[in-house]
Amino acid sequence: MTEETQAVDLALFGALGDLALRKLYVALYHLDREGLLADETRILGLARQDYEPDAFRARVRDALEHRVDASERTEESMVRFLERLDYAQVDFTTLEGYSRITDWRDGREVPMVIYLSVPASLYGDICKHLSGANCLDERSRVVVEKPIGYDLDTSIEINDAIGAVFDESSIYRIDHYLGKETVQNLLALRFANPLFGDQWNQSKISHVEITVAETVGIEGRWGYFDQAGQLRDMVQNHLMQLLCMIAMDPPSNLDSDSIRDEKVKVLKALRPIEGDMLDTDVVRGQYVSGSVNGKQVPGYLEEEDANTESRTETFVAFKTEVSNWRWAGVPFYLRTGKRMPQKLSQIVIHFRPQSHYIFDPDQRSLASNKLVIKLQPEEGISLQVLTKDSGLDKGMRLRQGPLNLDFHTAFPQARIPDAYERLLLEVMKGQQYLFVRRDEVEYAWRWVDTLIEGWEKRGVAPKRYPAGSWGPVSSIAMITKDGYSWYEDY
Amino acid sequence: MTEETQAVDLALFGALGDLALRKLYVALYHLDREGLLADETRILGLARQDYEPDAFRARVRDALEHRVDASERTEESMVRFLERLDYAQVDFTTLEGYSRITDWRDGREVPMVIYLSVPASLYGDICKHLSGANCLDERSRVVVEKPIGYDLDTSIEINDAIGAVFDESSIYRIDHYLGKETVQNLLALRFANPLFGDQWNQSKISHVEITVAETVGIEGRWGYFDQAGQLRDMVQNHLMQLLCMIAMDPPSNLDSDSIRDEKVKVLKALRPIEGDMLDTDVVRGQYVSGSVNGKQVPGYLEEEDANTESRTETFVAFKTEVSNWRWAGVPFYLRTGKRMPQKLSQIVIHFRPQSHYIFDPDQRSLASNKLVIKLQPEEGISLQVLTKDSGLDKGMRLRQGPLNLDFHTAFPQARIPDAYERLLLEVMKGQQYLFVRRDEVEYAWRWVDTLIEGWEKRGVAPKRYPAGSWGPVSSIAMITKDGYSWYEDY
Repeated sequence: MTEETQAVDLALFGALGDLALRKLYVALYHLDREGLLADETRILGLARQDYEPDAFRARVRDALEHRVDASERTEESMVRFLERLDYAQVDFTTLEGYSRITDWRDGREVPMVIYLSVPASLYGDICKHLSGANCLDERSRVVVEKPIGYDLDTSIEINDAIGAVFDESSIYRIDHYLGKETVQNLLALRFANPLFGDQWNQSKISHVEITVAETVGIEGRWGYFDQAGQLRDMVQNHLMQLLCMIAMDPPSNLDSDSIRDEKVKVLKALRPIEGDMLDTDVVRGQYVSGSVNGKQVPGYLEEEDANTESRTETFVAFKTEVSNWRWAGVPFYLRTGKRMPQKLSQIVIHFRPQSHYIFDPDQRSLASNKLVIKLQPEEGISLQVLTKDSGLDKGMRLRQGPLNLDFHTAFPQARIPDAYERLLLEVMKGQQYLFVRRDEVEYAWRWVDTLIEGWEKRGVAPKRYPAGSWGPVSSIAMITKDGYSWYEDY
Repeated sequence: MTEETQAVDLALFGALGDLALRKLYVALYHLDREGLLADETRILGLARQDYEPDAFRARVRDALEHRVDASERTEESMVRFLERLDYAQVDFTTLEGYSRITDWRDGREVPMVIYLSVPASLYGDICKHLSGANCLDERSRVVVEKPIGYDLDTSIEINDAIGAVFDESSIYRIDHYLGKETVQNLLALRFANPLFGDQWNQSKISHVEITVAETVGIEGRWGYFDQAGQLRDMVQNHLMQLLCMIAMDPPSNLDSDSIRDEKVKVLKALRPIEGDMLDTDVVRGQYVSGSVNGKQVPGYLEEEDANTESRTETFVAFKTEVSNWRWAGVPFYLRTGKRMPQKLSQIVIHFRPQSHYIFDPDQRSLASNKLVIKLQPEEGISLQVLTKDSGLDKGMRLRQGPLNLDFHTAFPQARIPDAYERLLLEVMKGQQYLFVRRDEVEYAWRWVDTLIEGWEKRGVAPKRYPAGSWGPVSSIAMITKDGYSWYEDY
């Protein structure tokens, strides 16, 4: 955790792709500007397109000018960053082009970081050719993006192909949720604050909610999304990672494997949804036309390229349990969907109410504490506490009020770094604790596969919900029948 | 707690005194303006001075115009309030004048509230004459101000004299600290928030601090103050009350006597300071000349009318323990003084650190939670939590940040009522939970008397401290030798 950033040679596969242009150069630029890229660090863009290095740099400059705030740009820092860049046109599927990498390396000593911002179907070939072209040594690292497969079997295939060339200790699987400040803050919140840490268990917590709501729909990638669905696309990775960070037992220390061992324990303990639970504990949804933020939008089956027979879910809500000593009996309610009324990612920890209640009987339902951890749209933490209502005419009436820690307000001088900045920095430091280990991927797929098989076996069709709503009504009923409700602070 | 404000006839003894003109009319005016004085409520000012009722009303109007914010005054509300007022010139020490009260009552049915804003030496005579003149019935209430006596014996005398006429259930002993919103909020904080309530004991709390610091000196009342000293003047009442609100066991309900029973249990369990503890656990201080807020001020012995031999303390700090199951082994550090650098009343609850610590070793001392309850200058609550420092270069460094509940920010529309508004309202409702019961007064005196006797027996002279400092250096040493320090957030 305390190691320094090393100089690296970063070879970026998919250098002209969407992720690279939207996120990666911007993140690397910010790191450079903050003095967190070693002077000797260089970046080689690799793609199929025919570009001169200068044209490539111009393209990157254009991306930075669109995506970096003007106050963060100076000509000097732009030039400094762009000078690190080089470009090579390569066909990733054949060995020949990989000599471009060894040429670029030119015998340099610094470790290689291979960033695979390409479809997972190419991971195997690329790794094989990198090895075949002698681009790698034991210090080389590889960064891969989700999705790692489509189910457990395909993820094993992909991981085997990467693993044939790279040791697990050199593989950095990105889940960008782990790069968010607030997600990392969960470690500090839980393990540095006894006030929370000591009550983080079934005797003090009644239930936990995780919501990841998007306002967007399919964004022109209907075919791709329809193969996956919301469960594979969001739950298997992001929601599972959030769940692990919330539910994990305290690691003995902050070493990457100590943390990831604890996360795996959560995934192993996660109760699968099968049998009759498929009727009661999970809701599969698909949006129909409706209105989001005042704008009329088409239904999922009316989107461009849509197969009008599709049963793919764009929403899923479920109730699960982490079956271990810490969490037995505590329901975890998770939901994620597209075309929700609001972009919102938040975790709500509901503490059990006081066993004896002495205030106004009609306020009894108020009387529990909630810790609200917001990831989007703003990052922050808010603790709902009960105080005395301040009006003179209120007697000893209670009032629920937040103790807020909004990061923008708390640290006004600090720019909140994008998740990719943190993640790239950790790759360059050789720190894996914010990356997903192979067994995490596989246990998460195992759980997801069980649910999908259940749906298929029972022929579960998604329930319709209007775009701009919080999902099918039955996703509300699923939680209200337990006496709770989704936390509203919209 | 839910009874309505009743109409009362309020007879205010000491109607031209400092407290009445500074606080009481202003508080009554605000209650009236908020619709919390019943229409039939009337107020009779009583004092020795010869005033016509109209001149008295003019005097009160003048006081209101100086002390009520212009935005809170309308001619209509001023007139409405002033019309409730009448005045009678009375010599409190002879029976004759009391017929003025029965004349004013004129057979009215509403209960009498007698407010004694006069020296305690007059309480006995006034009660006797009120009874002798048949001013009272079983619904009459009496409100008395501190100090109730000079020690246990004199407090018994005074309470006996009041008790000869009024039943304890009709006696309202004011400690205006109990009228502060934040102090009442302690009930809500502790007993409506399981997150705090469940950890409010020796297994989770390492120590507690209470500081009541004044910047003022003697303010022209040297002779009066020198008879008392800071221990009698501030600790016996205000600090003991704060200590009780923090340390009390949860009452079964919010009835006045349920709450006060629990407070008495704290006072009974409070470890007396005697024997060698007089050397180690208490610091007696007296200010010498110095500078407060940039202004040079004289020492206590150089003030006007000072007896230059005086050993009276203007500062006291001590460490005590509440010897019961909840608090055994938890030190309570209290301090109060005049001519401190800042007007500050605050309570700090220090939670024990996490038993296992996994973050940067050099930040270990940061790692505990603190709940800071501020009474002055602003009222508010702040929970110190540890979060991840947000800089990219910080790795997993921690940062202590507050979750704040500042009442002005949290309830922007709400005017924070003065303590006297709340207290007068409760008197009119016939609710005693914010008033001090006789046994509370007596147990507090018993503890204070023990300490004073110890000082006298050992001839403890106060230690000098410069005006504008936080008291004698030994008051810092007293806490640091236990490994703690006074919480600083100046």
